[in-house]
Amino acid sequence: VIIDIQNDFLPGGSLAIPRGNEVLSPLNGYLDLFQRDHLPIFATRDWHPANHCSFREQGGPWPVHCVQNSPGAEFAPALALPPDTEVISADTVPEQATYSKLDRTDFNARLQKREIRRLFIGGLATDYCVRSTVRDARKLGYEVCVLLDAVRPVDVQPGDGQRAIDEMIGLGCRTCTLADLKPQVPPTGTLLTDLYQLTMLQAYHERKMNDTAVFEFFVRDLPGKRDFLLAAGLEPVLDYLETLRFTPQELDWLKKSGHFKAGFVQQLETFRFTGTVHALPEGTPFFANEPVLRVTAPLSEAQLVETRIINLLQYSILVASKAARAVLAAPGKILIDFGLRRAHGAEAGLWAARSAYLAGFAGTATLQAGALWGIPLFGTMAHSFIQAHEDEAEAFESFARSHPENVVLLLDTYDVEAAAEKVVQLARRLEKENIRIRGVRLDSGDLAGQAKHVRMKLDEGGFPGIRIFVSGDLDETSLKSFALGRAPIDGYGIGTRLTTCADAPFLNCVYKLQEYAGQPCRKRSQGKSTLPGRKQVFRLYDARGTMERDILALDSERMEGEPLLKTFMEGGRRVAAPISLESIREHAAEQLRRLPPPMQTLQEAPPYRVEISPALHRLVDEADRRAC
Amino acid sequence: VIIDIQNDFLPGGSLAIPRGNEVLSPLNGYLDLFQRDHLPIFATRDWHPANHCSFREQGGPWPVHCVQNSPGAEFAPALALPPDTEVISADTVPEQATYSKLDRTDFNARLQKREIRRLFIGGLATDYCVRSTVRDARKLGYEVCVLLDAVRPVDVQPGDGQRAIDEMIGLGCRTCTLADLKPQVPPTGTLLTDLYQLTMLQAYHERKMNDTAVFEFFVRDLPGKRDFLLAAGLEPVLDYLETLRFTPQELDWLKKSGHFKAGFVQQLETFRFTGTVHALPEGTPFFANEPVLRVTAPLSEAQLVETRIINLLQYSILVASKAARAVLAAPGKILIDFGLRRAHGAEAGLWAARSAYLAGFAGTATLQAGALWGIPLFGTMAHSFIQAHEDEAEAFESFARSHPENVVLLLDTYDVEAAAEKVVQLARRLEKENIRIRGVRLDSGDLAGQAKHVRMKLDEGGFPGIRIFVSGDLDETSLKSFALGRAPIDGYGIGTRLTTCADAPFLNCVYKLQEYAGQPCRKRSQGKSTLPGRKQVFRLYDARGTMERDILALDSERMEGEPLLKTFMEGGRRVAAPISLESIREHAAEQLRRLPPPMQTLQEAPPYRVEISPALHRLVDEADRRAC
Repeated sequence: VIIDIQNDFLPGGSLAIPRGNEVLSPLNGYLDLFQRDHLPIFATRDWHPANHCSFREQGGPWPVHCVQNSPGAEFAPALALPPDTEVISADTVPEQATYSKLDRTDFNARLQKREIRRLFIGGLATDYCVRSTVRDARKLGYEVCVLLDAVRPVDVQPGDGQRAIDEMIGLGCRTCTLADLKPQVPPTGTLLTDLYQLTMLQAYHERKMNDTAVFEFFVRDLPGKRDFLLAAGLEPVLDYLETLRFTPQELDWLKKSGHFKAGFVQQLETFRFTGTVHALPEGTPFFANEPVLRVTAPLSEAQLVETRIINLLQYSILVASKAARAVLAAPGKILIDFGLRRAHGAEAGLWAARSAYLAGFAGTATLQAGALWGIPLFGTMAHSFIQAHEDEAEAFESFARSHPENVVLLLDTYDVEAAAEKVVQLARRLEKENIRIRGVRLDSGDLAGQAKHVRMKLDEGGFPGIRIFVSGDLDETSLKSFALGRAPIDGYGIGTRLTTCADAPFLNCVYKLQEYAGQPCRKRSQGKSTLPGRKQVFRLYDARGTMERDILALDSERMEGEPLLKTFMEGGRRVAAPISLESIREHAAEQLRRLPPPMQTLQEAPPYRVEISPALHRLVDEADRRAC
Repeated sequence: VIIDIQNDFLPGGSLAIPRGNEVLSPLNGYLDLFQRDHLPIFATRDWHPANHCSFREQGGPWPVHCVQNSPGAEFAPALALPPDTEVISADTVPEQATYSKLDRTDFNARLQKREIRRLFIGGLATDYCVRSTVRDARKLGYEVCVLLDAVRPVDVQPGDGQRAIDEMIGLGCRTCTLADLKPQVPPTGTLLTDLYQLTMLQAYHERKMNDTAVFEFFVRDLPGKRDFLLAAGLEPVLDYLETLRFTPQELDWLKKSGHFKAGFVQQLETFRFTGTVHALPEGTPFFANEPVLRVTAPLSEAQLVETRIINLLQYSILVASKAARAVLAAPGKILIDFGLRRAHGAEAGLWAARSAYLAGFAGTATLQAGALWGIPLFGTMAHSFIQAHEDEAEAFESFARSHPENVVLLLDTYDVEAAAEKVVQLARRLEKENIRIRGVRLDSGDLAGQAKHVRMKLDEGGFPGIRIFVSGDLDETSLKSFALGRAPIDGYGIGTRLTTCADAPFLNCVYKLQEYAGQPCRKRSQGKSTLPGRKQVFRLYDARGTMERDILALDSERMEGEPLLKTFMEGGRRVAAPISLESIREHAAEQLRRLPPPMQTLQEAPPYRVEISPALHRLVDEADRRAC
């Protein structure tokens, strides 16, 4: 809610509030954040009749200001209000004066209609309209957060502004500044790119080459045993593109680096991504040569982002695809990502947790992934916990008493069978105190064999409800063999082999120019040739909804089947709110159920059919004739 | 330089400066940063005789203050001055008054002696001693940065403080706040850990188990074709440990997560790493079971950091070890890291650039790695650059004119031999304008065969100085075969296979409890047993300095040979300044020269001998007898 950012209240206006213009920059920052999350924005305005009773000539305290339809009543042009801002006109009755925007307006009704419960309020002036509106909002039961860096007082009496803020806090308001609301996603620095991207940009800049370019990200062939891949990593890419800008420090460094000319670096200050993004929704299976993501943007923008787009998409796809195989190999089991420690750096660990969850894992051990995305967290204890105690039984009991709601005990520090015996004894004792042992974990040796022994011991001891989890060097292949051997295992902690994608740690994936300035482009390098033009994937299903075949066609063609690439970004902005990880997970589950049956059971499957449309074939020939 | 943080100038003192105590917190922050970088710290003090002429009773403007050896002259106890702070006593002569700490003191001489050129100055008061000292420092030619958040004025006349700051800026001073100086390393969040670490910490907290624990990081066996590994990742680990703390947001999230008790989370607020770290210097070869890093710390501190320590060390070691093999496989060639795009996330790309450089690569394509660590940057152009131009020759010329100092042209977009011909023609034309083509790059197909053709074409054309670079799916194996085939290649861009460590994407590496509360610990899990106790590696060399064998012994033993683990951190602080990447790189180069000759040429080598000392053998037996 932006209160009264009107010309009359700003420097030069008839009722200029001291330093009122200082709120413009933070307010524009908030507008940017709220728009990015597709949250509704309300702008209020004083909208007085010419003879309003608050004016001095009518005996009121103020000079004439904000008269309906006068230039002084207009919103400040420097305020970047989006087109769909809802405008609230207030204090419109000649003989009644109010500072509250909730007083005799339809503002409350409009908030109710949208089921809004929480307001973020800034604007002018702290000690009049902001204060009164906040008071009424609190009376009506709204949660209110006052944007401290985006309010300024009139301060008729020095200290009025501060007193108003103290009063609002006393009414239960929270306060924040722009910095508090900045999203806490892993950083996506603009320098996470190759030198040559900027080298090329400088050449483009000098030659004024900046026509529209179309790049597509695709995988040339499926690695290892994969017979499908799962799209993932799109939301991180969209976050990256939306927030892409060079910081002053980065520009400073580029200037000093000796690699670039000053004029070129200078103009990077206003560099933004303004393009369009089409993509497969995360969680959609895809195959070789099918575009996963298409960027349509001025050449320099589309080029600079190549490195980071590949970096983000490749790894998320690798993990999601491998995790999906694990999910298919162990139907009904609880799968947990244990892989942060052996992931390649922190970011890999985080993206792995996200990708595994979207592919159907139940959760992760990585705290930061829980904090960032709300992924359910799982965890037990390490061997060191057992070792740090005088003996194993004491360690089990110590743990159970500290975490009575989630007791899972690690059995393989010294001797598994002896440990299982101790668990039964402890379970009997704790039963009387209503503490239940929920599970045990095995982390070494012959996991299936040990699980059988432990299961028997627990059952014989009267605890068939204690679940068995195993971990240690697992992947979809071992899960499948446990399933075939009917090992009595309830859940799996899957780490290293998943987060390093050990059997296929990279994809032959590229981000290639397919069209420039309206002309299709084709690379003909040995073994690395590409299909030109803007492409779409059309998917055909059989009567039961099972995937049958795809047609790779030009985007301009209308083919039978479901077009898979959707529009996610236009003009550098998401076209809709970010998709929640839960929705993506549901989509992925539904998509996996539609895979051809052999793929669902990790059987050797005949390659999935991907046909190339006749028009696309013709374009290849045409591009070859054109190229020199 | 900390000016006059003495009791008399703080609230309650005889000449208390308004809000003077507000400088304490930022100054302690600066002290922390400067100590971390082992930069010298100077604290000045007013050190007046009892009859100083500036006192009112002597006709001066001020009350009696800071009389030598009086409590009021002491440094504020809340200021965290390190023991080696240099103290400057000023204004000590009864009949002369000065505000400048450079006036009639040995301060300038002491700065000169240490060859200090730049001063960061904060303290009290802005408009007197800070201003006068800064004036003199500028006159003496020092660069000065005024710590804006760590100065406060007397403001005898309102605005004096602001005017003093304006004056200092006018004298050419820079200004900064604590936030500006915070190191720009990739973030090392405290939540980059597993849930179970905190679960265990809560149990330890409740049982008050926090005796000294000793954990060691080691690799159980060498993966793939490796016959040695190269230590790397230590400096990032030390950075992580030194800065480890829970932010208010993290504590807030932990409280709300539902996994922990409030009292436990509360006390995490003061959690710091206070332990000792011994480690192999980065760039040192090592073998299976040898400790690479040893942490000695209270149990909770040593436990929490497990996940991130493994995460940081494993990947840096993987890349450094593989990069070292590439360096050994291609002596005299220029090797460049091209791998960010296919690395597993951004952090992997950055650590890979660092590890490859320390192992002997010439540089990287990753801009951010250049910005963070000053690693030399290399780069040419992408195929898209060629494709975006009307024709290839035009693209070459456009690039050459934009970057006349570093012209490297990509030949394989359409037809390599035709492209080489165009390069010769362009080189002839540009020669007249003194623009030199430095190199060409091949990125697909039969690289060795094409290189021979291109070399011939360039030589025949009269350009034997144009160098040939190749890239595309390379690793040490392909480099070795190019060397054997005498391919005329001058440099290599190595990407995917290096940054994903494709042939061995993880290490069987662990961070294990070896001793707790003075008792050696041993895990006996099947295939995962450990050697107990604090260990040291002693390395023996032959007469020519070549590595001969290692002895793995207890740290308390004195064996022949060079002890490899050094002390890097004590009490949670580095014992010396961070080692520069250049020094690490030199150390690594020297170490690689001392490898047994078969390892130097990537021949099949007999396994390197690592003996276990008799005392360590005895401790294994003892720990086995003790364990229950």
